Amino acid sequence: MKNTYDFGLIGLGVMGRNFILNVADNNFSAMGYDLNEEQVKALIAEGEDPQKVNATSDIQTFVSSLSQPRKIMLLVPAGKIVDSVIESLLPHLDKNDLIIDGGNSFFTDTDRREAYLKEKGIHFFGSGVSGGAKGARRGPSIMPGGNKEAYKEVQPIFEAVAAKFKGEPCVAYLGPKSAGNYVKMVHNGIEYGLMQLTSEIYDILKKAGNYSYDELHTLFDSWNKGRLQSFLVEISAEIFNRDDDKGPGKLVEKILDKAKQKGTGKWTSQNAMDLGIPIPSIDIAVSMREISALKEERVQADKLYNRPEPAVMDKEELAKWAEEALYFAFITTYAQGLHQLSDASTEYGYELDLAVIIKIWRAGCIIRAGLLEDISKAYTEDKALSNLLLSPNFVPKVQSTVTSARNLVAYAAKNGIPLPGLSNSLTYFDTYTSGRLPLNLIQAQRDHFGSHTYERTDMEGIFHTEWE
Amino acid sequence: MKNTYDFGLIGLGVMGRNFILNVADNNFSAMGYDLNEEQVKALIAEGEDPQKVNATSDIQTFVSSLSQPRKIMLLVPAGKIVDSVIESLLPHLDKNDLIIDGGNSFFTDTDRREAYLKEKGIHFFGSGVSGGAKGARRGPSIMPGGNKEAYKEVQPIFEAVAAKFKGEPCVAYLGPKSAGNYVKMVHNGIEYGLMQLTSEIYDILKKAGNYSYDELHTLFDSWNKGRLQSFLVEISAEIFNRDDDKGPGKLVEKILDKAKQKGTGKWTSQNAMDLGIPIPSIDIAVSMREISALKEERVQADKLYNRPEPAVMDKEELAKWAEEALYFAFITTYAQGLHQLSDASTEYGYELDLAVIIKIWRAGCIIRAGLLEDISKAYTEDKALSNLLLSPNFVPKVQSTVTSARNLVAYAAKNGIPLPGLSNSLTYFDTYTSGRLPLNLIQAQRDHFGSHTYERTDMEGIFHTEWE
Repeated sequence: MKNTYDFGLIGLGVMGRNFILNVADNNFSAMGYDLNEEQVKALIAEGEDPQKVNATSDIQTFVSSLSQPRKIMLLVPAGKIVDSVIESLLPHLDKNDLIIDGGNSFFTDTDRREAYLKEKGIHFFGSGVSGGAKGARRGPSIMPGGNKEAYKEVQPIFEAVAAKFKGEPCVAYLGPKSAGNYVKMVHNGIEYGLMQLTSEIYDILKKAGNYSYDELHTLFDSWNKGRLQSFLVEISAEIFNRDDDKGPGKLVEKILDKAKQKGTGKWTSQNAMDLGIPIPSIDIAVSMREISALKEERVQADKLYNRPEPAVMDKEELAKWAEEALYFAFITTYAQGLHQLSDASTEYGYELDLAVIIKIWRAGCIIRAGLLEDISKAYTEDKALSNLLLSPNFVPKVQSTVTSARNLVAYAAKNGIPLPGLSNSLTYFDTYTSGRLPLNLIQAQRDHFGSHTYERTDMEGIFHTEWE
Repeated sequence: MKNTYDFGLIGLGVMGRNFILNVADNNFSAMGYDLNEEQVKALIAEGEDPQKVNATSDIQTFVSSLSQPRKIMLLVPAGKIVDSVIESLLPHLDKNDLIIDGGNSFFTDTDRREAYLKEKGIHFFGSGVSGGAKGARRGPSIMPGGNKEAYKEVQPIFEAVAAKFKGEPCVAYLGPKSAGNYVKMVHNGIEYGLMQLTSEIYDILKKAGNYSYDELHTLFDSWNKGRLQSFLVEISAEIFNRDDDKGPGKLVEKILDKAKQKGTGKWTSQNAMDLGIPIPSIDIAVSMREISALKEERVQADKLYNRPEPAVMDKEELAKWAEEALYFAFITTYAQGLHQLSDASTEYGYELDLAVIIKIWRAGCIIRAGLLEDISKAYTEDKALSNLLLSPNFVPKVQSTVTSARNLVAYAAKNGIPLPGLSNSLTYFDTYTSGRLPLNLIQAQRDHFGSHTYERTDMEGIFHTEWE
């Protein structure tokens, strides 16, 4: 069993097992490793041919079975376990071996690990993998960052297993250091934003349009054939169609409205604040997961306040507003995340090519959407585009849909149906496109109480006024 | 000059100079220290009587002039300078001396410094001071945290110099470790929220009501005599009234709309995300300062898009909506900040008494407002109140004003006038008071693509569905 397997994978949970089977499907032999012997056995059984897929619980057997330079991917939970797996590997590795962290590690952890392993002659890749368990099996979107030369060792395998968009693999070398984890983090931040928006639209269709789940299924299904075509709209349509197996009605209606989070959305928002880049559509999605967790307080508060009974709207008009508003808000949410990536690229020296990143998001990943084809064109045409809203191709798309966003937000505000994500997408648009904002008053206040000074619109310089 | 001065102050900038003169006014003798000899001379001249106020550029002279245990306050910029000042003091100090950091240090820095100095027998206080330069001179709100016993040494001085609300000093021992800096940080976060809201209301009054600056002055002045009475409304009225000294018109109109920030608002938002506490009205205020900084992009974007010409509203109706909406949003913004404080108290072991904190905010500080009297009552009556919106006293206040917030947000959305802070205050209210939110769809999506499982509304347990 020496030196024969092309690829090693540590962590044979659902993601790991699926990824390794995907590798084998593409005619690379792969060896798995997990301390849990049940998972080792399960993989060997599922792999059928141990020449192609094998597994072990012995780290030395695992490492010595791999061809050199070894390509070892970790699909284990982010955090200390990544460090401890690295330590357990180190005594068995040789120079120029590659360790690839496929989890959602925080990017500064990846920078630390990359520098630590570089000293030892080992290459370390932070490599986000998106697409969930099914994506891992059938073709995920893969976002690797690290040493550019070393990437070539794993490139053929990654290009084979990745999802394909019109034949192009949804993987590319993204940049040095933690570029891969950073891009995946922002991908997930955008995902938070899009999921929040989808849930709001579902809510208002139900409350303002009395949409049944069958009608929601049909509507989302039709949207998924149009410009809203996207994985999240597609699976929402599937979800609306799913009967509860434990009683009458649809399953989604019985699901508790407390959404969990694992941290990548929060990190995206926190880091955007460090960069000074506004991403309110993502921030609010994080806040809404937090508010959803306060279920008991919400139930208590609900009894204390009377909110307006929503006025029922015409189903078709509502559907038109909803489709246009969702399209508008998807665009503004992507715009914010991409703005963050563009700024982070400079700040952290990632040298990101946004057109490439958007292309590898077109299939395989959770935020895949027809819209990304247009977005990748915009960044291909103008590599230095600082914000998607400034792209000439997007002006008409936004201009023609913003009115429905306005109508929907106005209706929702009056009728007590919260649309926090859509509201923030709209105010983001309305402020980003305002040459003049009222923050002159804030600068005046800061100068009044704190002598923080201000600039003027009509002359150069720094000014202070004794306001009293 | 040995052992005679009651209080020492390091950093004779405008805040430090004003604070030390305030100490002297209250019959405590005070010694200042600054490396800048000009500032030393200026203070001595302004202090008139060197028996009461003196200053030096020699650290040994400074320390040896103070009575023991020494009480030494730092009013220097947050960051490494605090550490270097501490190091320069240490060789000259004795056990049980107190160092009080009056700046906006990040709370984990304060924890680190407190632990470091504790080993050496020195007490360290992180002690937020709010009220700006004028507050420091005439009476600030002071938020000290640290060793409870040691606080008694400085208590008489702080109670003398602090602002008074109906005779009660706006200072109190808040809790151990970094409690003082943490409370000041959230105070500033709330301040960001209130300033953003005030600027939005100014904007909509101008754009939708064609309010002149004279009319804005009169309106804000009248509001400041009612339930909106607050420092920020008061100074806004003053600002609207101020003529430009460099040309015709009002000064505020000429101020550049790029608002700066020094980090405390950002820290508040970032830390709230770590705690999992939603504070969207503060988050959006941080985002808006960031958007304001993108002036050149905004001007460019403004030319690309046509926004609706605002429909002009009746001035009086608009003023009524604006007053009610601002009151509503002030309440929800305080509610969010206080929610964060309440959670942080548990998380970091601060044992905060929110009623006490709110009382010391009633005068001296930037967020002082008539409303705080009602809020302190709510927390006095129910020490365990988890959110202000659940207080029986606040239900009618919110219920009677939320309709105007709805009207204003709806109008603004339709007319392209951004009200991001008010929108987030409204959606915060509408989600916090919703027993059921549409995040069941998000949980279904997460289970669909990532097998993340979900809970049900009608039975206990953790569930997973094969959705396809």
